[in-house]
Amino acid sequence: MSGLHKCSSILVTGASRGIGLHLVETLMKSKPRPGKVIAAARDRSRAKELNRLAESHPDLYIVTLDVTNKDDIKAAFKEVESLVGDKGLNCLVNNAGIKLDSTLNEVTAEEMMKNFEVNTVSPLMVTKAFLPLLRKAAKQGTGMGIHRAAIVNVSSMLASIQLNWGEGTKEKWYPYHVSKTALNMVTRCLSSDLLGEGILCMSLCPGWVKTDMGGPQAQLTKEESIDNILKLISNLSEKDNGGFLNHTGETLPW
Amino acid sequence: MSGLHKCSSILVTGASRGIGLHLVETLMKSKPRPGKVIAAARDRSRAKELNRLAESHPDLYIVTLDVTNKDDIKAAFKEVESLVGDKGLNCLVNNAGIKLDSTLNEVTAEEMMKNFEVNTVSPLMVTKAFLPLLRKAAKQGTGMGIHRAAIVNVSSMLASIQLNWGEGTKEKWYPYHVSKTALNMVTRCLSSDLLGEGILCMSLCPGWVKTDMGGPQAQLTKEESIDNILKLISNLSEKDNGGFLNHTGETLPW
Repeated sequence: MSGLHKCSSILVTGASRGIGLHLVETLMKSKPRPGKVIAAARDRSRAKELNRLAESHPDLYIVTLDVTNKDDIKAAFKEVESLVGDKGLNCLVNNAGIKLDSTLNEVTAEEMMKNFEVNTVSPLMVTKAFLPLLRKAAKQGTGMGIHRAAIVNVSSMLASIQLNWGEGTKEKWYPYHVSKTALNMVTRCLSSDLLGEGILCMSLCPGWVKTDMGGPQAQLTKEESIDNILKLISNLSEKDNGGFLNHTGETLPW
Repeated sequence: MSGLHKCSSILVTGASRGIGLHLVETLMKSKPRPGKVIAAARDRSRAKELNRLAESHPDLYIVTLDVTNKDDIKAAFKEVESLVGDKGLNCLVNNAGIKLDSTLNEVTAEEMMKNFEVNTVSPLMVTKAFLPLLRKAAKQGTGMGIHRAAIVNVSSMLASIQLNWGEGTKEKWYPYHVSKTALNMVTRCLSSDLLGEGILCMSLCPGWVKTDMGGPQAQLTKEESIDNILKLISNLSEKDNGGFLNHTGETLPW
């Protein structure tokens, strides 16, 4: 995948399965590829496929990171800091997420809070913790993109307030929809606050992908989605800062 | 305020101060006005101004409601149910809210969760609890608006993902911004799910108002904001369902 070599290091959260795992798999196969690919997984002992991938790719780094756990975040930061050194971290992909799909009739306050914690608060807290490394990388470049420092928040089409409405639309999944919309606002706030430091932040909808989360009836194979995502990440530039793009690079309405 | 008489009953949460209090005060002075005005306050013993208002207006009903407390919600429902009877509830104004204004440097996961709980989850849970009364009212009318059943979520200009961005903008208040954006998605989900039942739901930005929350440097007096808000609520119709309007009725971008 051309362009990925501009990125010395990339950290992907939620890499034990689904889009995160496939993103890391594809990164390891890509030529050229980022110097350091770091896969974060909540529970390494249960991340069988990721561990298998690491066996065939000894240069894949795995760190333990439950994104809701403050101690994990601190420990992961230390590990990544020692891996990337003075170059800092070029790209953080906040991919870890859960989907609680309760409808209006079913939804509880606890489910709303849980999905918000994992999908919205955790990407913010992980980003905040890794800012020193993103800033280090940002100081060594000009322009915007993964050659410098970029935060990619994995969002969803279902986050779009504009699109998710109208007669005939499906019943809403309150915890998931709302958490991803809230993540888009986190993206937007970060992109505004970090603009002056040259750190890019954007929300990415990977499409509806055949994963454990997406289900077998999804529209895209993992390959189709990931190839597009990597092309998009490779080519991120100033115009994408604060944006909400789908996997083909199309701007989605908030 | 013309049009308010079409509404037999209105419930306003967070009515002990700020916009909620002033909304109730103005409703009580309005001629004609809704048959039953119900003010919900977290802690009645501390709601001095609201209690004083009730002394001069014996037909103002006050119910205790900490919107984050499930038992309070249940008890408030029973009270309101006995007040409105077979007519049901025509208008629910989800106004209770808090503003945690931590910047990126300051923000904690706990603050994100707290502001989300009060400003996003609670309006959803209060709405869900009061749905039987809103449905009762909706079954007795046609069209959409406060003559039938309407949910007004008090949002903020700061909820707009589109508007809150760009060089030179102020540092973001993560807990508050994100909670109000999330509330807008709750509005949108409710408006979609309840469309078929004729229950209107919309998000309202009251403007930047001189209240305890808005501060003395705010642009609008309470009178200016409330007069507009009541006019807007009075005239709500199908076209406003699922919308995000400011106090003058202008559509805001998501």
